[in-house]
Amino acid sequence: MIKVGIIGAASKVAEELIKLLLHHDKVKITHLISETFIAKKASSREVHPALRKLLDSQFDNLNIEKLKKKSDIIFLAKPESSAMTYVPQLQDKRIIDLGADFRFRDANLYEQWYKQKHTCPEYLVKAVYGIPELYREKIKTSDLVANPGCYPTSVILGLAPLLKEEIIDVESIIINAVSGASGAGKSLKNRRQLFINVSNNLIPYNVGGIHPHIPEIEQELSFLSGKNINITFVPYVGSFTAGLSSTIYAKLKKDTTEEAVKQIYEKFYKSELFIRLYYDDLPEIIDNEGTNFCDIGFKIDSRTQVIIIVSVIDNLIKGAAGQAVQNMNLMLGFDETEGLPYSKRLKELRGT
Amino acid sequence: MIKVGIIGAASKVAEELIKLLLHHDKVKITHLISETFIAKKASSREVHPALRKLLDSQFDNLNIEKLKKKSDIIFLAKPESSAMTYVPQLQDKRIIDLGADFRFRDANLYEQWYKQKHTCPEYLVKAVYGIPELYREKIKTSDLVANPGCYPTSVILGLAPLLKEEIIDVESIIINAVSGASGAGKSLKNRRQLFINVSNNLIPYNVGGIHPHIPEIEQELSFLSGKNINITFVPYVGSFTAGLSSTIYAKLKKDTTEEAVKQIYEKFYKSELFIRLYYDDLPEIIDNEGTNFCDIGFKIDSRTQVIIIVSVIDNLIKGAAGQAVQNMNLMLGFDETEGLPYSKRLKELRGT
Amino acid sequence: MIKVGIIGAASKVAEELIKLLLHHDKVKITHLISETFIAKKASSREVHPALRKLLDSQFDNLNIEKLKKKSDIIFLAKPESSAMTYVPQLQDKRIIDLGADFRFRDANLYEQWYKQKHTCPEYLVKAVYGIPELYREKIKTSDLVANPGCYPTSVILGLAPLLKEEIIDVESIIINAVSGASGAGKSLKNRRQLFINVSNNLIPYNVGGIHPHIPEIEQELSFLSGKNINITFVPYVGSFTAGLSSTIYAKLKKDTTEEAVKQIYEKFYKSELFIRLYYDDLPEIIDNEGTNFCDIGFKIDSRTQVIIIVSVIDNLIKGAAGQAVQNMNLMLGFDETEGLPYSKRLKELRGT
Amino acid sequence: MIKVGIIGAASKVAEELIKLLLHHDKVKITHLISETFIAKKASSREVHPALRKLLDSQFDNLNIEKLKKKSDIIFLAKPESSAMTYVPQLQDKRIIDLGADFRFRDANLYEQWYKQKHTCPEYLVKAVYGIPELYREKIKTSDLVANPGCYPTSVILGLAPLLKEEIIDVESIIINAVSGASGAGKSLKNRRQLFINVSNNLIPYNVGGIHPHIPEIEQELSFLSGKNINITFVPYVGSFTAGLSSTIYAKLKKDTTEEAVKQIYEKFYKSELFIRLYYDDLPEIIDNEGTNFCDIGFKIDSRTQVIIIVSVIDNLIKGAAGQAVQNMNLMLGFDETEGLPYSKRLKELRGT
Repeated sequence: MIKVGIIGAASKVAEELIKLLLHHDKVKITHLISETFIAKKASSREVHPALRKLLDSQFDNLNIEKLKKKSDIIFLAKPESSAMTYVPQLQDKRIIDLGADFRFRDANLYEQWYKQKHTCPEYLVKAVYGIPELYREKIKTSDLVANPGCYPTSVILGLAPLLKEEIIDVESIIINAVSGASGAGKSLKNRRQLFINVSNNLIPYNVGGIHPHIPEIEQELSFLSGKNINITFVPYVGSFTAGLSSTIYAKLKKDTTEEAVKQIYEKFYKSELFIRLYYDDLPEIIDNEGTNFCDIGFKIDSRTQVIIIVSVIDNLIKGAAGQAVQNMNLMLGFDETEGLPYSKRLKELRGT
Repeated sequence: MIKVGIIGAASKVAEELIKLLLHHDKVKITHLISETFIAKKASSREVHPALRKLLDSQFDNLNIEKLKKKSDIIFLAKPESSAMTYVPQLQDKRIIDLGADFRFRDANLYEQWYKQKHTCPEYLVKAVYGIPELYREKIKTSDLVANPGCYPTSVILGLAPLLKEEIIDVESIIINAVSGASGAGKSLKNRRQLFINVSNNLIPYNVGGIHPHIPEIEQELSFLSGKNINITFVPYVGSFTAGLSSTIYAKLKKDTTEEAVKQIYEKFYKSELFIRLYYDDLPEIIDNEGTNFCDIGFKIDSRTQVIIIVSVIDNLIKGAAGQAVQNMNLMLGFDETEGLPYSKRLKELRGT
Repeated sequence: MIKVGIIGAASKVAEELIKLLLHHDKVKITHLISETFIAKKASSREVHPALRKLLDSQFDNLNIEKLKKKSDIIFLAKPESSAMTYVPQLQDKRIIDLGADFRFRDANLYEQWYKQKHTCPEYLVKAVYGIPELYREKIKTSDLVANPGCYPTSVILGLAPLLKEEIIDVESIIINAVSGASGAGKSLKNRRQLFINVSNNLIPYNVGGIHPHIPEIEQELSFLSGKNINITFVPYVGSFTAGLSSTIYAKLKKDTTEEAVKQIYEKFYKSELFIRLYYDDLPEIIDNEGTNFCDIGFKIDSRTQVIIIVSVIDNLIKGAAGQAVQNMNLMLGFDETEGLPYSKRLKELRGT
Repeated sequence: MIKVGIIGAASKVAEELIKLLLHHDKVKITHLISETFIAKKASSREVHPALRKLLDSQFDNLNIEKLKKKSDIIFLAKPESSAMTYVPQLQDKRIIDLGADFRFRDANLYEQWYKQKHTCPEYLVKAVYGIPELYREKIKTSDLVANPGCYPTSVILGLAPLLKEEIIDVESIIINAVSGASGAGKSLKNRRQLFINVSNNLIPYNVGGIHPHIPEIEQELSFLSGKNINITFVPYVGSFTAGLSSTIYAKLKKDTTEEAVKQIYEKFYKSELFIRLYYDDLPEIIDNEGTNFCDIGFKIDSRTQVIIIVSVIDNLIKGAAGQAVQNMNLMLGFDETEGLPYSKRLKELRGT
């Protein structure tokens, strides 16, 4: 049994992570760290009441030596990233960081968008950006995986095949994305978490090229296309807890049929178990909820030659904890689906 | 007291219309027609239970002679348009049609998008497209007003000033719109009305240049700009009952500041009581709910030179029944705000 | 024009109050006090964004002399009651307190349930409990009205006729009540306000005879019946913003028909404009939303001789701000419906 | 691999059942029957879109011989029960009926409440009422299990220990239950399924001793207590998709402490893996969602000597499909948790 430690274990994303790990045959949770809830039972009403009976642990404070002793692999799941502080002290451990600290190749980009100094830029080279569908082989041998943001996961997976095949005008990309309120976490911080503000509403935020997921998306799209890409990205909080739907607009370079685009997606994602492609209809949040799938569909408006791609994930699963488990499985040589919903069925599909 | 008759009086939009008219000092509802609920009490559980105690009427069947006798002004509020059938028989009456039959200048456009023959194209010339902020003077003297669709209202009002001032590339317009489930009405027709499908979801529909509101939007945008405009339009049903938020994207023609755009909006909508402009923040559905306002805000992404306009209405009020009342007020020479929420306060603002 | 001042003007209930007062022909809001948001625009994004364009005022700090000069009538609308502090200083002003300080005849009751000393018990005699349907004449001549709690309003109105007629066993009363999340106000205080906790949920709280609305309900039910009544009361937060539905259970003393109970309600509430009675069906929150009605229906389970009463109000209107305006109208000699939704139609019903 | 057939496979409950069975190591779905969707792909947009990629099957028509050949165990999951028709023809097969046909010991009771003739009352003796926590041993050897209704599951499990210990007055039981909208299934049948009716609402239905789950609850409570019990039962549809919360009220026979009641529950449910007991707080729907747990908590109002029990289940899991799988596991000699959420962790808890 591989021993798992989690820093920031009282967060919403950690809750989701714990739920998945409880279904995993080959790991066990040995160490939960939360500075806010030291010595508090993890399943108590104030923290993760859904885990009652399932998890007996208490939260521990952060002690690097103890953490190293009790864990083989460590997830960093604090709402605000602070991975820079811990990573250099945890050198011989495998680490999956759910924050933004190691997602960029270029420390300047991080510093510019996150408005703070990067304290260990030398680790950026070692870190792998954790989208298995794009970087599977690198993840397998990495000790430091930067788990992607939720919006970036949906957008990058939605666009990757089209960029590879160079069928869209890379200067025309517009993304209108709607995320569930759980993206803002569990603690009372801002008005986008209040029921009376979110219910029956649709709240735009960080509009005008200022959301910090923009550089992450642009970095990856640029890698995929070989060109420098800037996007227009507008995020909304929708009136639901979990789920994320990105609607991506781009001009087609030339007259392209839906059949041709279908072939491009099919080819690119042929053996990917966690990608579901839609042709006749488009994906919806409730059909994806609770799964590690990225659901991708598209339509072409032939009047304007704009392709509309709808890419849906569960922001807490494929957009965070699920992808983290997928990465962990790769790093540890397990079946990639282990512990994730429908693992049994997905293994059958792969023929293992 | 002006006598009001409503055809399709059992529909969701008629319910909203009745609620507004009950607040109106100068009209009274004299005739409610519903072929489905003949002789049924309008406020019964099966139809409009919210009107209990407020409305004592029963539904009547449609008899043109009786209708003419009992009504001075007639609203056509059937979910599926059938106005073509009635309008020629109601010649000497003032009519406000909440359906699509008289929204187009060109009968071909109607026939192409609505897939049926227009049976009285000669009325298209007489009909006025009922956005008071654009066609106020014409509405005042018209006997036949085509009340606009909900999506068109939000999009046209959001874009009008920018098209007038020619600051955007008219070939670049993309609209991502989310409407409440009430847009689909009250009767059980499709899966986008079921709670278990709509709740916690975001449902794309009619994607790929096929929603019948597209030609209506394009007609008006083309009038405003003097150019032939095609748009990319993607509608969603959101997880809320009332409200509609359109996010409109367009390339700016040249480097334009937010301050300059602000001036353009201010100037265009200077004395409009039902337009609220946002600068520092962006409009949200819950702040608009239940009002006849169109709330408009914008941001410029200076990295991509895309302007992002958020235009929010209540799909049942400014997007349907409220705008219909506003049109009625103009046609009858009443104060434009009569019967609408905050009428008293809006009159003060105007200084009447 | 009567001048209105509001203390606690940044609260959720104050927002609702302001919206109603903006529709009122005979008063004007002259003074908004909020210690938290001094000099802030009332309609700003952080406070009451729905009031944009409708209200130009800024919040003022609390200065008793200024308040007295600028207001004829004063609403106390702070989330936590602090009326005891102000009332003695505002002697010659009319006051409507939306908190609990003056709801009890007996200061001990207040002190026991609210766990604090009552600093001006001598005012309890002068204060009138503000349910117009029960205390109309007293309210008309009062200078200090204690506006009831939301749960008490629905429960007391639901039970009053049955207690008067003595048809239920007063020791058997059980109340299962569900309130919208707006009851907890606008500021981030507890987990019952977070969207991710309230959405798709039903949250019991203060269960086991400890909710402070219990003594208020018991006081009034005891007055009505002439007996000392204890109730079992269980409150829930439901997955909606506004509205409150109390299901009240009581044993019938003897075999009673639904027809007989109907007569009792009809007689008791005969000329009450803000009571709507249901016989064949039962009231629902969405049909009541945004109104000042208390909707009451009932069924008898003849197998167990239990009567089930469903009493629905909008927690922010009849449960708070609307009832406060109704009280103000009585105190100032205005039509009781002035400024409230459907006022015009209700006046017609009364025949004024 | 055990072969599973499902009649009524296009229903909402069948969807949930399929999802669970896809996680089960020892069974495989071999036959899906839906008369409405013959030859349609099960995962198509119109039926179970969430099963895309996970289930390749098409629906078949009902042919008893084929069904027998292709299935070892059969679930009857039609929204309206029709099990009486099939069961006599499927004699040598194991059957789990999710409808009401075989839940009663007494055919008269069925006929009286369901208003139709029971066509094979001789099977009522053989059928076992499928609550494993009460009838585990009988279920193990049964060929015909009547899977309980959702409301009965929550109520019976909530009351069983107290009835056994005879601490409550059995004539005083009142149940106020709120269920998610998914209880009404997927097809458009009634207004309690429409988003615009359910959202932001709380809808009472079948009030007054007429809901057909009443006799089922009373039968089981009477068995448990040895007395003839009548209950007052009021169901609501709440503004959420899945989940069910029953608030149960009963007079305590004599002064009883919360500690004593706690002991009673602890003892009764000591080794039950799917029961979670709450003491300090009370269970909530969102913490239970997606699980097969029945979460039970209680408080005593010492002022009235009423005990308030809150019993929460997921109406589609423990209230239907999950309990059906639990029953199947018992019938087939599998681990009782197989295929159910957190099976791995629950096995650890049991120590297997």
